[in-house]
Amino acid sequence: MTNEEHTCGLHLDPEIREDARRRLLSVKGHVEGITRMLEKEHVYCVDVLKQIKAVEGALSKVGDLVLRSHLRNHVVTAHERGDADAMVAELMEVLKYR
Amino acid sequence: MTNEEHTCGLHLDPEIREDARRRLLSVKGHVEGITRMLEKEHVYCVDVLKQIKAVEGALSKVGDLVLRSHLRNHVVTAHERGDADAMVAELMEVLKYR
Amino acid sequence: MTNEEHTCGLHLDPEIREDARRRLLSVKGHVEGITRMLEKEHVYCVDVLKQIKAVEGALSKVGDLVLRSHLRNHVVTAHERGDADAMVAELMEVLKYR
Amino acid sequence: MTNEEHTCGLHLDPEIREDARRRLLSVKGHVEGITRMLEKEHVYCVDVLKQIKAVEGALSKVGDLVLRSHLRNHVVTAHERGDADAMVAELMEVLKYR
Repeated sequence: MTNEEHTCGLHLDPEIREDARRRLLSVKGHVEGITRMLEKEHVYCVDVLKQIKAVEGALSKVGDLVLRSHLRNHVVTAHERGDADAMVAELMEVLKYR
Repeated sequence: MTNEEHTCGLHLDPEIREDARRRLLSVKGHVEGITRMLEKEHVYCVDVLKQIKAVEGALSKVGDLVLRSHLRNHVVTAHERGDADAMVAELMEVLKYR
Repeated sequence: MTNEEHTCGLHLDPEIREDARRRLLSVKGHVEGITRMLEKEHVYCVDVLKQIKAVEGALSKVGDLVLRSHLRNHVVTAHERGDADAMVAELMEVLKYR
Repeated sequence: MTNEEHTCGLHLDPEIREDARRRLLSVKGHVEGITRMLEKEHVYCVDVLKQIKAVEGALSKVGDLVLRSHLRNHVVTAHERGDADAMVAELMEVLKYR
């Protein structure tokens, strides 16, 4: 089963999608803030590291939202739908580098 | 010793600063791309998760650059400078959630 | 639904169980090796850190085996079984600190 | 400079060494506990995952102890000793997969 076949009809829940989109706009703003920080001559390394860490935290929160929605809406129904193997393989792939 | 005192004069290396800034501009573009992805009704959860993971990878690369520069320019000289305790404490704090 | 109710009848696949058990015996041996390393006066910090990291890698491989088996045997059938909410909640909890 | 040359004389602090050793004995006991858990036919996947996670937490605490000691005793003095480049390179290597 190709990726396209098995994802056909599996879409991100609209509410989660909107929540994730808004959070990513805020992440974008935060990244811009760090960019401006890096324009200043006297920026201290650890202050940059802390900001990067904060952005990583915000991103991983978005990832959690999307993952939970995916589990709830698509993974728990995979056996009924008949694409369990593909779903598990792709989920393990995406969880690998968490 | 306050944070301000011990960081006074410890600045991020200009070349690393510029490299980090350019990488963050690219991260920002990537985040905007995911935001647009999330405007589409038929976006698939795992595709979003993969993009978030890619951004996290790029961010952690920026963090590595800054960390390496900090170690090289400020941490290895901390004993001579006399702020070793403060440097170690703040470094452990920032490494905690890696 | 209590934890006990919903896990009743959900057991780790016997083959995976045996594979995981054997891998953990090897992890145990590795940990003993580090313990002996730490009895020597002249052990170098980074050599210890590398060994700890190796053990963490081996452990996370065991975790991946068990997780994959859990997804394949229990999560993808959760909706049919009627315990999807509990399964997702507990899975998110366990993935949180990966 | 070879690894042997630059680590000559850099040893893990004896107190930290003893603390780490004792913690690893406890980690070993915990791993044995999971091994016994895996001998039972009716073990539940997520219970195994939770135990593995707990061991990973304990291991990473040992790693933090050793890292902090290394930073305090060897990294902050690297410039004076003249092996800063080797110390930073090896530290970045070991932090990579945290």
